[in-house]
Amino acid sequence: LASSSKSPGEFELIASLVRGLKTSRRTILGPGDDCAILAPSHKPLLYTIDSMVEDVHFRLAWGPPEKLGAKALAVNLSDIAAMGGRPTVCVVNLGVRPGLTQRFFDRLYAGLGSLARRHGVDIVGGNITRCAQLTITVALLGEVNRVALRRDTARPGDEIYVTGTVGDSSTGVRILDGRIKAHGDARRFLVERHLNPTPRLAAGAALSRMTPPPSVIDISDGLLQDLGHILERSRVGAEVDACAVPVSDAYQSVMGNVLSCALGGGEDYELLFCLRPGYTERILSRRLGIAVKRIGRIVRGKSLVVRDASGKRISTVAGWDQLRSRQ
Amino acid sequence: LASSSKSPGEFELIASLVRGLKTSRRTILGPGDDCAILAPSHKPLLYTIDSMVEDVHFRLAWGPPEKLGAKALAVNLSDIAAMGGRPTVCVVNLGVRPGLTQRFFDRLYAGLGSLARRHGVDIVGGNITRCAQLTITVALLGEVNRVALRRDTARPGDEIYVTGTVGDSSTGVRILDGRIKAHGDARRFLVERHLNPTPRLAAGAALSRMTPPPSVIDISDGLLQDLGHILERSRVGAEVDACAVPVSDAYQSVMGNVLSCALGGGEDYELLFCLRPGYTERILSRRLGIAVKRIGRIVRGKSLVVRDASGKRISTVAGWDQLRSRQ
Repeated sequence: LASSSKSPGEFELIASLVRGLKTSRRTILGPGDDCAILAPSHKPLLYTIDSMVEDVHFRLAWGPPEKLGAKALAVNLSDIAAMGGRPTVCVVNLGVRPGLTQRFFDRLYAGLGSLARRHGVDIVGGNITRCAQLTITVALLGEVNRVALRRDTARPGDEIYVTGTVGDSSTGVRILDGRIKAHGDARRFLVERHLNPTPRLAAGAALSRMTPPPSVIDISDGLLQDLGHILERSRVGAEVDACAVPVSDAYQSVMGNVLSCALGGGEDYELLFCLRPGYTERILSRRLGIAVKRIGRIVRGKSLVVRDASGKRISTVAGWDQLRSRQ
Repeated sequence: LASSSKSPGEFELIASLVRGLKTSRRTILGPGDDCAILAPSHKPLLYTIDSMVEDVHFRLAWGPPEKLGAKALAVNLSDIAAMGGRPTVCVVNLGVRPGLTQRFFDRLYAGLGSLARRHGVDIVGGNITRCAQLTITVALLGEVNRVALRRDTARPGDEIYVTGTVGDSSTGVRILDGRIKAHGDARRFLVERHLNPTPRLAAGAALSRMTPPPSVIDISDGLLQDLGHILERSRVGAEVDACAVPVSDAYQSVMGNVLSCALGGGEDYELLFCLRPGYTERILSRRLGIAVKRIGRIVRGKSLVVRDASGKRISTVAGWDQLRSRQ
């Protein structure tokens, strides 16, 4: 059992991961030894790990392997963005099941490597194992830009903003698995938002230059649940205006006025942030390089209240414990 | 699909991972945010990732969850040892299948956390996902002690040494899965060597203080194959005296004179190193704090020749390509 823990063709796979990889000056030794060696960093480091598992997070039929490889890195880049940081170096663990070709992995690595290059990330090592499901796990290091943006610094009176639009990705996944019907441009847009999320690194970096530093999280679990993480860590409550939550035209054309995916759907990888009053959406959108909408404010207590256009409560979560179990 | 990517009880699992975790001063922010934050390191960093997958690397019936958790970290510690480094910080990705209890994960994390504390490693983050097989992936950072020990620095004339004994782990796994019969102390010893390997961090640190720095690898794939990695990276050959390869009394009592597990079995996590002549086994054993045996020497060319007691060739691998495909 242990002696056959490696999949046949492992060396070809590693070769295809390493092939053509260019690393920056911060990488003293890349793949091929027991460890990679990195030059000392004189800034605080950021460190995160995330994993994508076949039939849990994706199906192969949904899109090309390039987008799969890129997304495995993108979800980690989004964590660095949410801390206001700059990504630097990653290692990749691949669980390989039977039935996948060398060509498939070449394409997967091409997508991963292309996104890494675009953001100046060195891929410095990897490990490959057999597994019943295809799994791609990326552990990513980054550097703090100016100050690290945390979940535990929101204060009553702060205004709550989100970048971009929310709910597209979870609508897209429902289209892909047939739970929702959609066609044409709307379908293409929503599916693309799911398969190819954009980590908001420039927006995160811009937020790290603000004083006082805002409290930030990326929307991976869903808007209300991720806001709940900030509330719990900061020990505050919030009021959210459901009508202010930004949704795309494509979302509206498919979902109408139903906000469930916008409020509760995951994998948007937009940033949600809380900052002292005094900004306008226009100023923030310009500064962050992406449209920004104000959706509510931080209050004392530990309740998350969601109101409709008339100000009526449409949902109240009475405590952080409840928010945690909403998934 | 995407919206149900988290397993029920994820928060309890994360809580049990984090509970009672103490981190050192190098960890500015531990688990609970988008990323961990680490204090700047002024030494070069080492970076590695490794994964253990149920029914590929282990079966739950073979041992207690504490040893499983510890081994998932130990195999990474061994990579740091092979670079002569000091481990510092890790993140953990857990793939959870149905049917495992909270108590099981508490015990798994207890084993992982205990080994981490013993070696001064901070566990600063994690991620949990559903998976068909239990998988434990650890990405580990370390610091270079004095100089990083690499695979690509062996030179003709170097003598080849190994620490401890080899073949115990692969004999142990054959006992566990019923391919080999063994009883009493020998069985217990060999099984324990498989379930609970000892990363040779002190030996690696001692090697990093030698001049010139030796070429080092840890024996995870098997002695000949791992030696082959050094030969390929250093572009040299080797001659190995099979009779000099150190095996335990337990190994001999079960395997007799059969050296297949000693030469080809994996997961020993001993160190194999190549250094300039002039040392004795006794001096090196004292300096490294573990018994060390000389097993051969580095030669020009790209062949790996294994000889028996009479000097007769019992195995020749003509090139690095052949070594790579030996698994």
